[in-house]
Amino acid sequence: MKKVDLNSDLGESFGRYSLGMDEQVLSYISSANVACGFHASDPIVMEKTVAMAKAAGVRVGAHPGFPDLLGFGRRNMVISPAEARAYTIYQVGALKAFVEAQGMKLQHVKPHGAFYNMAAVDYELAKAICEGIKAVDPDLIVMALYGGQLEKAALDMGLKAAAEVFADRAYEEDGTLVSRKKPGAMVTDEELAISRVLRMVQEGKVTAITGKDIAIRADSVCVHGDGEKALAFCGRIRKALAEAGIKLCSVEEVIA
Amino acid sequence: MKKVDLNSDLGESFGRYSLGMDEQVLSYISSANVACGFHASDPIVMEKTVAMAKAAGVRVGAHPGFPDLLGFGRRNMVISPAEARAYTIYQVGALKAFVEAQGMKLQHVKPHGAFYNMAAVDYELAKAICEGIKAVDPDLIVMALYGGQLEKAALDMGLKAAAEVFADRAYEEDGTLVSRKKPGAMVTDEELAISRVLRMVQEGKVTAITGKDIAIRADSVCVHGDGEKALAFCGRIRKALAEAGIKLCSVEEVIA
Amino acid sequence: MKKVDLNSDLGESFGRYSLGMDEQVLSYISSANVACGFHASDPIVMEKTVAMAKAAGVRVGAHPGFPDLLGFGRRNMVISPAEARAYTIYQVGALKAFVEAQGMKLQHVKPHGAFYNMAAVDYELAKAICEGIKAVDPDLIVMALYGGQLEKAALDMGLKAAAEVFADRAYEEDGTLVSRKKPGAMVTDEELAISRVLRMVQEGKVTAITGKDIAIRADSVCVHGDGEKALAFCGRIRKALAEAGIKLCSVEEVIA
Amino acid sequence: MKKVDLNSDLGESFGRYSLGMDEQVLSYISSANVACGFHASDPIVMEKTVAMAKAAGVRVGAHPGFPDLLGFGRRNMVISPAEARAYTIYQVGALKAFVEAQGMKLQHVKPHGAFYNMAAVDYELAKAICEGIKAVDPDLIVMALYGGQLEKAALDMGLKAAAEVFADRAYEEDGTLVSRKKPGAMVTDEELAISRVLRMVQEGKVTAITGKDIAIRADSVCVHGDGEKALAFCGRIRKALAEAGIKLCSVEEVIA
Repeated sequence: MKKVDLNSDLGESFGRYSLGMDEQVLSYISSANVACGFHASDPIVMEKTVAMAKAAGVRVGAHPGFPDLLGFGRRNMVISPAEARAYTIYQVGALKAFVEAQGMKLQHVKPHGAFYNMAAVDYELAKAICEGIKAVDPDLIVMALYGGQLEKAALDMGLKAAAEVFADRAYEEDGTLVSRKKPGAMVTDEELAISRVLRMVQEGKVTAITGKDIAIRADSVCVHGDGEKALAFCGRIRKALAEAGIKLCSVEEVIA
Repeated sequence: MKKVDLNSDLGESFGRYSLGMDEQVLSYISSANVACGFHASDPIVMEKTVAMAKAAGVRVGAHPGFPDLLGFGRRNMVISPAEARAYTIYQVGALKAFVEAQGMKLQHVKPHGAFYNMAAVDYELAKAICEGIKAVDPDLIVMALYGGQLEKAALDMGLKAAAEVFADRAYEEDGTLVSRKKPGAMVTDEELAISRVLRMVQEGKVTAITGKDIAIRADSVCVHGDGEKALAFCGRIRKALAEAGIKLCSVEEVIA
Repeated sequence: MKKVDLNSDLGESFGRYSLGMDEQVLSYISSANVACGFHASDPIVMEKTVAMAKAAGVRVGAHPGFPDLLGFGRRNMVISPAEARAYTIYQVGALKAFVEAQGMKLQHVKPHGAFYNMAAVDYELAKAICEGIKAVDPDLIVMALYGGQLEKAALDMGLKAAAEVFADRAYEEDGTLVSRKKPGAMVTDEELAISRVLRMVQEGKVTAITGKDIAIRADSVCVHGDGEKALAFCGRIRKALAEAGIKLCSVEEVIA
Repeated sequence: MKKVDLNSDLGESFGRYSLGMDEQVLSYISSANVACGFHASDPIVMEKTVAMAKAAGVRVGAHPGFPDLLGFGRRNMVISPAEARAYTIYQVGALKAFVEAQGMKLQHVKPHGAFYNMAAVDYELAKAICEGIKAVDPDLIVMALYGGQLEKAALDMGLKAAAEVFADRAYEEDGTLVSRKKPGAMVTDEELAISRVLRMVQEGKVTAITGKDIAIRADSVCVHGDGEKALAFCGRIRKALAEAGIKLCSVEEVIA
């Protein structure tokens, strides 16, 4: 039986500022990436988000980002490998404490935003992040863009890597995401998006923007909870997976 | 044989900003309180400080503070118990990750500055901090002002508490520190300071500012490394302890 | 003809985080207090908010707060007078640049949250804030709680002060606000709230929580834009003022 | 008579953290670039630094940087033109308030660190910074790397631009600085550094790393105050300028 994980970025509120529909999206997903206070979140939000995930039976991962709250971690920053490693240890360690305080085990680490995107194409940065993850706990799963440098660095270092795919993004022939600046980068047709996900999980294939089929591996599908439309899509993809006989489970179980 | 610990606040540099003579002070102390990024320090500094402590054979504790880098955590802030607990978990968890990444075990937690001072007199705040510490690891030692509310809260909660004393501060009859705003608050005569420490350790007594002897317990003595004079004092107190046949050891061993 | 100003706190979004219904509330008010980046807001938000206020014909004031984004400036902090003065100059200066860049003149300064509340009862803090305001521009109007220490300090220093009143808060006999911790602190009946405002403006009187009438001066009434209900109330109070023949105008015109 | 300005980056301390020898370096320079709270400095430091500059008869400029205190503004960040413009207005406005509060007039703006380096090669970023400067005060002088995009953008926009040169850096044939990663990037021989500065001022020429003479314009020479050696060099360069009959004056006078 085919398996797949649905993951979403959670715990992105900060102080007086609320973001996302965490409570609702938790009812659809199997793994939550919880922000760690650098690009979003704060200790109160982290504690509450972990508690909500526990109540919903959803596994928790750390979602470390650049130290750029003002830019929500979405702006490229040039940091050294030593900084990348230490920032990862700090953020993952902080979240791990909340997770373990509630009797859970931290499942994975998925870098956020620009940290994720830069690591996908920069092996040195990816390696530094993986060193940080390994330093905290070598059992942690690295959730990374399928085929990117972060996945490669994790595997090179003996870490477990889970391949993440996107339902709403087009792929180049080499497996990278089509830049948002190019036409056709987004898959806006929800039916098409869902059928693509099913095929990625069942056949390990996706049609690139060129029309050519390429190999892909979908251990986890990223979904969003930032609006009613996004939540509705979560429900549809979940239903489609169930109807196709694909088991929805935590990413740890998917790659076991 | 009498035992005592010498502790000092370390890892207070931040980014481009250097503070303290950490390398040197590590040769005198047995426990280091390492700042955790809220009032001082950053991930790079934390990693480096933990490595230096390890190389010097010095045990490491977390030194969480208020989220006030601009005020160096020395300004009173009114935060809720839930915030105090969560801020503690976050900071202690982050430092713990660096400590364990280097194969060490986190020994203790000592709140910093205004967080420490307010917790010494506010049981509710003290309790919240202790809940945070216990949530991370119930084996952690709470280092607190002798006789204060933080020590009381720790003991009430079943945590191990270590009593901290100050060589350079005068005491009121009730065991609290004489406010720095009052004359006589500081013990500026180094000979006197050292003889007071010896008596605190050996007899469990200290002469209050009123002239009356009061009971005290000195599990750990706080020393400073912020200048040549402070370092020289560390050397003198260490020598005096040795000559008096008092064993200098980690606070864990002192209270074992 | 009686005159009064309606003021509201605006520009409280930050980076990715949205807060308030600024565009809508601007259609009801005559003075906007714009956050300055310490407790909320950022340069992009400030620039945009000033532009929206200009388009709506609303005068702009600075709304400086404690350097506590995590606590939204609502947590008491103990800062020195020198810090209060410098923090005020910095924040007011930054906002003034955006205001003048768009060809407007900064009208007033109203401290935010805990900065406002503490200044209302602490003359030394209030004086430091006023020194900061005067240092930037002695023509700036200080918007302060009627009868509080900030109003007093402003007048003592030769600054113009505007008395602010609250439609939804009960008053003690001495003119201070009833603490939110006490029963009856909030005026929840909107009809009553509006009739109280009209009487404050027309007669300079309000009934204290004890039942006794006290003198008050309402140069500006604080309203909120944080929800549909709040906006509806803005509309009702505006309508009531018009029907009562009270002119709604900027606080500068009110106190001219 | 030839004229030149000596400028240095000042006011880079933050809270408890001290940096630089501002008091001493002020006795050598004619223009001070004061940090504005994003990459370094805080309101207390800014106020104090402006006061010291005034006492020393040194003109003050704003030294805005990226919002990256942790990286001291030295790390490249990808921000939008709108962000660059607004960050500039905010920081320049804040410093301007301190300068005018002390009865001085803000003289110039020189971006800091990575903000300066990126603007030197990115016209779009440079233009956004200049728009911010112009929005605050079209009379402000833009201090920029000789021949770079910031200088070009300033002139294109009708702003006054002052060309900055470096005594301790080698130049490529196209007038850009030799990357620090290349051998020969730094001019470590102080005699040579000084003779190069004299020639830049007197002849408008400097020998590029290739050995070829290139044209350059030295309105202001950047010097450092971060150590005894740096201060000694300030003294030597000042003496050499005097002996060569070159007048040391503010950059405003140089380009007048």
